[in-house]
Amino acid sequence: MQSFWAGHPEIEKELEEVRATILGRAATDDTEVHAAIRQLLESSGKMLRPAFVLVSSRFGSAAIERSRMIGIAAAVEMLHMATLVHDDIIDGAALRRGIATLHALKGPRVAVLVGDWLFAACFSLVADFARMENARSLSQLVARICASELSQSADRFVLHTSIRRYKRRIAGKTAVLFALSFYVGAVESECPPALCDTLRRLGYCLGMGFQIIDDILDFRQTGGETGKPTGSDLSQGILTLPAILELGADEGRLRAELVASKRSPRAATRAAKIIAERGGLEKARLHAETYTCRALHEIDRLPEGEARTTLREATERLLHRTY
Amino acid sequence: MQSFWAGHPEIEKELEEVRATILGRAATDDTEVHAAIRQLLESSGKMLRPAFVLVSSRFGSAAIERSRMIGIAAAVEMLHMATLVHDDIIDGAALRRGIATLHALKGPRVAVLVGDWLFAACFSLVADFARMENARSLSQLVARICASELSQSADRFVLHTSIRRYKRRIAGKTAVLFALSFYVGAVESECPPALCDTLRRLGYCLGMGFQIIDDILDFRQTGGETGKPTGSDLSQGILTLPAILELGADEGRLRAELVASKRSPRAATRAAKIIAERGGLEKARLHAETYTCRALHEIDRLPEGEARTTLREATERLLHRTY
Repeated sequence: MQSFWAGHPEIEKELEEVRATILGRAATDDTEVHAAIRQLLESSGKMLRPAFVLVSSRFGSAAIERSRMIGIAAAVEMLHMATLVHDDIIDGAALRRGIATLHALKGPRVAVLVGDWLFAACFSLVADFARMENARSLSQLVARICASELSQSADRFVLHTSIRRYKRRIAGKTAVLFALSFYVGAVESECPPALCDTLRRLGYCLGMGFQIIDDILDFRQTGGETGKPTGSDLSQGILTLPAILELGADEGRLRAELVASKRSPRAATRAAKIIAERGGLEKARLHAETYTCRALHEIDRLPEGEARTTLREATERLLHRTY
Repeated sequence: MQSFWAGHPEIEKELEEVRATILGRAATDDTEVHAAIRQLLESSGKMLRPAFVLVSSRFGSAAIERSRMIGIAAAVEMLHMATLVHDDIIDGAALRRGIATLHALKGPRVAVLVGDWLFAACFSLVADFARMENARSLSQLVARICASELSQSADRFVLHTSIRRYKRRIAGKTAVLFALSFYVGAVESECPPALCDTLRRLGYCLGMGFQIIDDILDFRQTGGETGKPTGSDLSQGILTLPAILELGADEGRLRAELVASKRSPRAATRAAKIIAERGGLEKARLHAETYTCRALHEIDRLPEGEARTTLREATERLLHRTY
């Protein structure tokens, strides 16, 4: 898969340094940790969150040391990696992005500990490179992400959820970390407060749109490009936007399949098909487009220049992605 | 079970505030988190680590706000709670201190997320109450604890381990956090550097002695007082000091039982019996006594007063404990 940032060599180069920083932290601790982190980095995907820190920091003072920004970007990526590793334990997932998960390869013991190591190493990087107020925001954010995931787990196989509850859940899961990535990059590079806020709002809208599309792609894919089986959310009892929108207009058939999906993976597949046939994916996409439109509106308020062009281009590609 | 600190009402009172602080952090986040934390606190044991922060801080300036020390003590206890919750996932443990574990009650999903929440909330408390240098030490320490647990998992059912390797393992697992608890209490209350170092060394020696005794008790208990089944370390393939000491003088019978214990829990029970009969527990206790003696030596170097008396008394009780 070609890198998402291939058209932006200056970001691509700094993301390479982010990877080297993460691997360097792992190297000092333990060979087991090092091997696991190396493997995780090989399937590290688009690296959106660290890239957002880096692009956002380009709106600030040119006198800012890039190495400090790279350290903070590495911390944000490690935080994301930690949540992925622990999510795979929770979901019992065998594959992520088509590659065997750490949990599947090495068992829960290694997955729990490597995830914990990543959390700790993330905070250690933050303590090394960021301001205390950002260290505080980051740890509060992680606590909120965990609480939000716990409320998602309480919601499994509950059919009377709402669009509002869904949006709160994906905000906690994705948008808040996107927002923080932009905000930290802006604050640490000494952007003026109004600019920091614009970048934070941009991150939030981008995160909401991104997660809605991710949830749509969960219905569409054939197991190839996202590396997950089709409709895996439904079969785990997680209702995302397409399902919630169609449940509102359902005469009973979809509801019956969703109830049955608690015991039957086939019922989950049938439910996914009903949702797709009735246009649930297109309806959900409209919600994503609203957020992307708001994100583009925030981008228009940014100072002109290469960083703004990069963000506009990335935002448009994220809305139209199929992986 | 009577509280370990029952004879020290001033510590007992502050530990109550530590519990309230932890519960208060959980209350703001989510009802699921709150319920889990409340349950964990009900089986919170001796609360040694936060007590060490609090006693240590009494050697410093009297002008220090106690609420700040209580916040730091709460952070240290949350860190310890996080590692226990995640350990129970790793070990698949059903009981801890005789009470059902979160993992057993609520499954791995809740245990992973509550552990992560505890880590994050710990760092958030540290960012609120401690100095940046201590935030850094704490996060580096957690990374080291994880790496050390990973090396322990690589060592499972390996019979050619050494006393030195064992001591490195328990240092990473226990003594380093004991040392940090004392040190953070001392530094944050503005003790002079030499006194901070004495308290740190005291914590280290106490932690080493404590963990050796814990490992001895794993052989002795009948499942009642520690709440774990007898010889549970051996049946998981973890060689602790009594086993390592007896393996050195073994003519073959113990080794054969230990090899067999990978597949047979009965062989693990027989191995435990051989070790006890040959005096392995008493030999290991000598090592613990050496550390406790060193700890008492450090205590003698502390300024006289109530805090020193408390520490001497606690150290002696920890060496002679049966739970």
